[in-house]
Amino acid sequence: MLGSKDINIKEVARSLSSLIVIEGVLMLLSIPFAIYYSEDSWPIIQSSLITIGVGMFVFGISGKKNSKHVGKREAYMIVSLAWVVISLFGTLPYIFSGSIPNFTNAFFETMSGFTTTGSSVLMDIEAVPKNILFWRSMTHWIGGMGIIVLTLAIMPLLGVGASTLFAAESPGPTTDKLHPTITGTAKRLWFIYVVLTFIETILLWAGEMDFFDAICHSFATLATGGFSTKNDSIAHFGPYVQYVITIFMFLAGVSFSIHYFFSKRKWSKVFKNEEFKFYSGVIIGSTALITAILIYNFDGDFELYFRNTVFQVVSIVTTTGFVTDNYLLWPTVAWFVLVLLMFTGGSAGSTGGGIKMIRHLLLFKTAGLHLKKMVHPRAFFTIKYNGKSVREDVLFSVMGFLLFYSIIFGIGVFIMTALGLDFDTAIGASISSLGNIGPGIGNVGPVDNFAAIPQIGKWVLSIQSSVFS
Amino acid sequence: MLGSKDINIKEVARSLSSLIVIEGVLMLLSIPFAIYYSEDSWPIIQSSLITIGVGMFVFGISGKKNSKHVGKREAYMIVSLAWVVISLFGTLPYIFSGSIPNFTNAFFETMSGFTTTGSSVLMDIEAVPKNILFWRSMTHWIGGMGIIVLTLAIMPLLGVGASTLFAAESPGPTTDKLHPTITGTAKRLWFIYVVLTFIETILLWAGEMDFFDAICHSFATLATGGFSTKNDSIAHFGPYVQYVITIFMFLAGVSFSIHYFFSKRKWSKVFKNEEFKFYSGVIIGSTALITAILIYNFDGDFELYFRNTVFQVVSIVTTTGFVTDNYLLWPTVAWFVLVLLMFTGGSAGSTGGGIKMIRHLLLFKTAGLHLKKMVHPRAFFTIKYNGKSVREDVLFSVMGFLLFYSIIFGIGVFIMTALGLDFDTAIGASISSLGNIGPGIGNVGPVDNFAAIPQIGKWVLSIQSSVFS
Repeated sequence: MLGSKDINIKEVARSLSSLIVIEGVLMLLSIPFAIYYSEDSWPIIQSSLITIGVGMFVFGISGKKNSKHVGKREAYMIVSLAWVVISLFGTLPYIFSGSIPNFTNAFFETMSGFTTTGSSVLMDIEAVPKNILFWRSMTHWIGGMGIIVLTLAIMPLLGVGASTLFAAESPGPTTDKLHPTITGTAKRLWFIYVVLTFIETILLWAGEMDFFDAICHSFATLATGGFSTKNDSIAHFGPYVQYVITIFMFLAGVSFSIHYFFSKRKWSKVFKNEEFKFYSGVIIGSTALITAILIYNFDGDFELYFRNTVFQVVSIVTTTGFVTDNYLLWPTVAWFVLVLLMFTGGSAGSTGGGIKMIRHLLLFKTAGLHLKKMVHPRAFFTIKYNGKSVREDVLFSVMGFLLFYSIIFGIGVFIMTALGLDFDTAIGASISSLGNIGPGIGNVGPVDNFAAIPQIGKWVLSIQSSVFS
Repeated sequence: MLGSKDINIKEVARSLSSLIVIEGVLMLLSIPFAIYYSEDSWPIIQSSLITIGVGMFVFGISGKKNSKHVGKREAYMIVSLAWVVISLFGTLPYIFSGSIPNFTNAFFETMSGFTTTGSSVLMDIEAVPKNILFWRSMTHWIGGMGIIVLTLAIMPLLGVGASTLFAAESPGPTTDKLHPTITGTAKRLWFIYVVLTFIETILLWAGEMDFFDAICHSFATLATGGFSTKNDSIAHFGPYVQYVITIFMFLAGVSFSIHYFFSKRKWSKVFKNEEFKFYSGVIIGSTALITAILIYNFDGDFELYFRNTVFQVVSIVTTTGFVTDNYLLWPTVAWFVLVLLMFTGGSAGSTGGGIKMIRHLLLFKTAGLHLKKMVHPRAFFTIKYNGKSVREDVLFSVMGFLLFYSIIFGIGVFIMTALGLDFDTAIGASISSLGNIGPGIGNVGPVDNFAAIPQIGKWVLSIQSSVFS
């Protein structure tokens, strides 16, 4: 008999194998594109059959749904292993099509897709078959969907994650406000996600994009991923497309529970939400600052500088990583602001990665409190969020998270420099992978890719990108 | 009648003017060097007379010691203004001698001296008259003395500062263990400081240094300052001098209460002190790591690499800033470790600046706790320091400090890049001034100086260097 302390391995295997089967089925969605563009559809069919086959085999041997306890330990194990397992099978289309023959590179690209990081090893994206690029964008979309459900439906039940922190006491984004069950919550979130993807696809298609580019970029936008189908990312397209993508990146970085409340016309829950206001404020403030710097330093078109700035600010804050301009050619002070923004991240409960706005908001409040205490050492102060007091252990947990984040960032830079990368590149690669952004600074800047990173470095960055996903 | 809320301005003026008079008297100590080296002693006499004169005049008009309340507000005001006021008069010898004719540059050099930062604007140090260089080293020594008394005698009474944090509950370095009165504590600390300075001077003099170089370098070492009398800093001297300075930099970075307990043979208070063990561990670990990297990358003399490494590690950890080798020519990973060490700082209650070891120790413990809580969300853990539990508000205050430190560091980098400095130089200049180190990275590296920083930048760095002093 199993002791109550034993992990219910069979249930973990059942869950993971279900995910793999779903992954295999979703691969089949690439086939219409292979047919339409007269490409070889065999690699994707092969990948799909192997993935579904292995998934069904493991599902079969893991037995019927048993009544044994499925608790936090099992849930943790499923979540931790899910990224690795789906990334392993996700490499198959790249390998079989020969688009990325090297396993390390293919794994890096797949992990970068599922974690919605968007760093690429592809030197010539446009030479890759469309059906494979569709799968590549699909990894973003699946990853984004997974992240929302994880952060808003599953993790609160486990008692972890940013959106959970405030569930107990504050009227912030909490799961139970949407629906009492995981499935109910997940369905509502997916519905919003699908609707937003649909609208963006239509809007992009109505512009200068064809349907293929439109859907691929919508997948990458809503997931805050950043994979483009073009070598020069969104710089390939005109102002209309760039503004549409800016707006949808902004929406993807908002908590999906805010979208839900918006759809229910609960305006006060939307516009009085402090994280939402802070997120908007950071974007507006940074955009104004950088636009001013660019106009001060260069002559020319205000609209162009504003558009490039707002696009890049939203792209980096939301951790999407699309690019319209080589920001490393801007004055250092302008791209230094972008480097600072690489440490922000979207809202809790969005598809955006990184530290998240709510943690920064609470950190700023804590710093303010520290200042007040320096002046009045014996006075008693509390920190409020959305009108209610925040417990000290919540603040403590936020600072613990930041500390842990900083340590992993530092270890990443250390390993990258040990592999021979220069200081700027090492900083750029480490923060970009940790925050799931995509481009960084140095030799992994907006017009570069990650192909030149040593193999060990790619594994380290893959691990880093999954740590906080 | 004055309300109880009014600041006792007269008492503030009395204290500050006493400091100025003392400063003016100490300037006279340069005269013997002017005579010995047949230099013009008029500039230093002039500076001294003006300083003493102004001090005595203000002391005179501020009236007799009055019985009104002298509380925390007055003490804060004295401490905050003291740095500025003594730096203002401290510029006189530079200006009158023509060594640094520009006021901004002279103020930067003086503030860099008193805060024990050690960043210099001098292009050719050896061309400056010895008596002025003696005053320059003296600013370090006065500053170091001030910092010890502030952190171990005055700030605990105000309820602020690193060494205070742990006074209430832990057997760490606390003031009252030394002596119940400020004066009693200060006398004991000064005695240790003077004795260590004396011993180092003798040891250096016994080596290849003359008396002038020996005393100037001892002043700079014990204060963890970093001003040298040579253009190539300690690279000018041989292994014996370099090892002696390494040892005394190490001692200067230890809490002076540890020195006191050592002199009283209370061994357990020394060797069981967690901060002392952590401080030693960081230095030993970093030295081993960097030495290994250098030997792996270059052929040659083990002793040379070890010596350069241990010197540079101790110099940066203690925030002294002496240099024996251009570490920017080392592999990036080696000097990246030094960049990380720029964020450490000496022990609380030492002359070393920066974040301080005890805060890092508690941060690591907090990060460990955070990890444990992720695995066991409901278990109860406490953090212990020197065998006793640390209250949550103490940890909170440590993290508040770090947050505040990070924000000021970021603002510093932002302003430096806005002034046109490149990314690396901006990072180097900001952390170097904030942590009172001296050299940084980029164009303010170990073989550069701060002369090329724009004037506004020098003011910003001066302010930064005094924030946490």
